[in-house]
Amino acid sequence: MPTIPSNIVVYNLITKRLFSTSTSKNMNYVEKVRLLDYWKIQDSSLQNEFPRSHLVLMVDRRLLVTKDTPDVKMVEHSYGDLKQLLGEYGLQFDLSNSCLLDALPADNDMIPLFGTSIEAADPPEDSPISKSDVLKQLGNSLGGRFTDIRMAMLTMQEERQRNLLAKFQTLTKWAATYRRCPKCAAALKMRTSKSGAECVTCQKVYYPTFSPVSITLITDPTNEHALLVRHRGSAGGVFTAVAGFAHSGESMAECARREIAEEVGIEVDLIQSLDMSQPWPMPDSSLMIAHVAIAKMDQKISVCPDELETAQWFSRQQVRQALETTLSDPQLKKLPRTLDDRQTLHYIPPAGAIAHQMIRRWVDGKIDFHNSRI
Amino acid sequence: MPTIPSNIVVYNLITKRLFSTSTSKNMNYVEKVRLLDYWKIQDSSLQNEFPRSHLVLMVDRRLLVTKDTPDVKMVEHSYGDLKQLLGEYGLQFDLSNSCLLDALPADNDMIPLFGTSIEAADPPEDSPISKSDVLKQLGNSLGGRFTDIRMAMLTMQEERQRNLLAKFQTLTKWAATYRRCPKCAAALKMRTSKSGAECVTCQKVYYPTFSPVSITLITDPTNEHALLVRHRGSAGGVFTAVAGFAHSGESMAECARREIAEEVGIEVDLIQSLDMSQPWPMPDSSLMIAHVAIAKMDQKISVCPDELETAQWFSRQQVRQALETTLSDPQLKKLPRTLDDRQTLHYIPPAGAIAHQMIRRWVDGKIDFHNSRI
Repeated sequence: MPTIPSNIVVYNLITKRLFSTSTSKNMNYVEKVRLLDYWKIQDSSLQNEFPRSHLVLMVDRRLLVTKDTPDVKMVEHSYGDLKQLLGEYGLQFDLSNSCLLDALPADNDMIPLFGTSIEAADPPEDSPISKSDVLKQLGNSLGGRFTDIRMAMLTMQEERQRNLLAKFQTLTKWAATYRRCPKCAAALKMRTSKSGAECVTCQKVYYPTFSPVSITLITDPTNEHALLVRHRGSAGGVFTAVAGFAHSGESMAECARREIAEEVGIEVDLIQSLDMSQPWPMPDSSLMIAHVAIAKMDQKISVCPDELETAQWFSRQQVRQALETTLSDPQLKKLPRTLDDRQTLHYIPPAGAIAHQMIRRWVDGKIDFHNSRI
Repeated sequence: MPTIPSNIVVYNLITKRLFSTSTSKNMNYVEKVRLLDYWKIQDSSLQNEFPRSHLVLMVDRRLLVTKDTPDVKMVEHSYGDLKQLLGEYGLQFDLSNSCLLDALPADNDMIPLFGTSIEAADPPEDSPISKSDVLKQLGNSLGGRFTDIRMAMLTMQEERQRNLLAKFQTLTKWAATYRRCPKCAAALKMRTSKSGAECVTCQKVYYPTFSPVSITLITDPTNEHALLVRHRGSAGGVFTAVAGFAHSGESMAECARREIAEEVGIEVDLIQSLDMSQPWPMPDSSLMIAHVAIAKMDQKISVCPDELETAQWFSRQQVRQALETTLSDPQLKKLPRTLDDRQTLHYIPPAGAIAHQMIRRWVDGKIDFHNSRI
C-alpha cells in the first residue's frame, strides 16, 4: 500500500495484534476507537469482517425502527439474518451500499456495526399490492417498521441512537455524491467504510463533509423573555431558536452574531457557548453548536423573508406552556391547521432536537449569564 | 434568475434600496451583514463593485503584509493602485482569482474587500535576477513584504486580520479545487464571491468546506499539571494541545474524547467547552473549538506514532516558563536544534494560535472546572 506511510502500517499491525489477544471484556475505550480507526482505512480488513457484522437498515431512505416500544431505536440484524430476510423479498445488500457506524462487543472480540441503505424495486404495474404495502410487510418481517429519518431524529430518546443515525445518513448521502474528483473529474475510489475517497488520478483525498452551525437562544437582559422564530415550511405552531451555517473565517460566536443579524435583523450584546452540540443530518449534514445571546427587546425585528415566517419575543411562561404541550404530544399530532393559528406559539421542537434541550434548560432557569465562568 | 426563489430577489431589492439611501455612518451591523449576503449571491452586483473595491494580495501563495511595524497586518490597496503597481511588473489580476472577504465603510457607502491570489511568472533562464529577488522588489513597491501564510496566522495580533486571512486562504483553495461536480463531473459555475458553486448540469450547489476540530487542554484532577504533545514535523521544542477533526455523527465533546484516546491513548473523565473558537486554514480548513478535559496522570500514555512524536505531563511552572519564552521570542528564532533538545518543552505555539490563548488562560489560573456553570 504505497500511499500509506509505513509508520501507520506498523502502528496498525501492533494495534491489530493487541486486539486479537484481548477479549471484548478487556477492550477499553482507547482500544475500541483505535480499532475503528484501523477499520476505517484498512479496506481488506473491514471486508473480512463484513460477514460477522451487525447492520441497521434504510429502504428507500426510510429507517427500520422498533415498533410498539415507547422508545424508538434502530433494529439491528446479524449479517446472516438480514441476508435471508431481505432475500425473501428479492432484495440484496453488499459493502457498496453500506457504511461503518461503530464497533460492538461480541463474544471474544469486537464486530462492526454497518448501516446499509438499499432501494426497493417498484412492483409491476399490474401488481395487486402497492409498494408501501410491500414495505409494511417487509418491516413486519424484519421485526420493525419503516419511518421518516427526520421524525426518527426528533423522537429517539438515546443520544447514541440519534448520533449513529446522523452518521448513517451523512455517510450514505456523501458516498452517493462523491463519485468524481471535484478538481480533475477522475473517478474517486471510495473506502469500504465510506470515511473517505481518493482520486485515482491526482490522489487527493476527500472526507465526508458536514459544517458547523450555530444555534442560539436569544434572551432579553432580564432573562425573562426569549426570541423564537418560525421557519418557512416548518410544522404549524412550532417555534425554535435561530440557527445557521458558519462561514469561512468566522468564529462560532461571530457566526451566531451574524446569523441573528441576517435572520431577525437585531444586534446582540453578548454571546456565550452552552457546551452542548449535536450532529444533525438534514437537509445538509451539520454539527449544531448551542449558544445563548442577550439582545435588547426594543429593537425592531425584521425577518429574512426567504428563511423565516416570523420571529417573536415570548415570556418564560409562554415558552413553558409550549414545552409542556410538546412533551405531552411529542409526535406533534395536534398541530394547528388554520393559517392564523400556525403563527401562534404552540410547540417547540421535540426532545431529540438540541433546540428542545436548550429551550428546556432556559425554561428551567438553568441558563444564566451571571454564572458565567468566562 | 430562475434558480433563485422570487422572495430572495424581492428581499434583496428592498435591502439594496435601503443601502443606496443610507450613508456608511448610518450603516449598522445588520445592514452590513445583509449587504455581504447580497453581494455573495448576486454576481452582477458584485462585478459592478469590483473597480471600487479594496484588495489584499497573495503572490505565489505568499501574503503581502506590512513591514517594519510591531504588529503584522495585511496591506490593502485600492483596485486602481494595485492594477498600476502590479502592471509595472507585468502582473494582472481579475475577478476570477479574487474572493469576497468583507464590506468596508467608504465615503458615503460600503465597498467590498477582496482577496486576490496570483502567480508570478518565472524569470527567463538567463535572467540576472532570481524570482525571490523579484518578489522582494515587488513587495517593496507594494509597501510591504511577502510572508508565509502560517507564520502570518501565528503572529498577527488582531483577530480580525487572522480571520480575514483564514477566509482568504480557505476560499482561494476551495475555488481552485471545486471545478467539477463530484456527483456528475459536469462543470461547476463558481460564484463571483467564491462563496458557492453550482453544477451546470444537475444544479447541485456546493459550498466552501471546513470542518470542526476539537482542541483540548488536558489537565490532571488537581489542575496543576497539563498534558501537552509534540506533532511530527513541528518546530523543535514546541508543545501544544491535542487536536483533531470531528467525525460524522459525534458531538464536539465526543470528538475531543475520541481524539485524546486515539492520539495519546488515555481516557478522560470530564470534558468542557472553553467558549473559544478560531478558523484555521492549514493544512486543511477547519474551525478549532477549544475544550478542557480532566484525566488521571497514572494512565499509560501511548502516542499514535503517525501523528505525534511525544506526549508528556508538565507542571504549571514548566508551562509558564515555555509561555514566557514564547512571548519573548514570538518568531521562535531560538528553536533548539539537537534531537534531544527538540523533545524538551521550550515553546508553546505563538500568540495567533488558539492553543496559545488556551494554555495562557490555564497558566494564569483562569481555567477551573469548579467555576463551571454547566
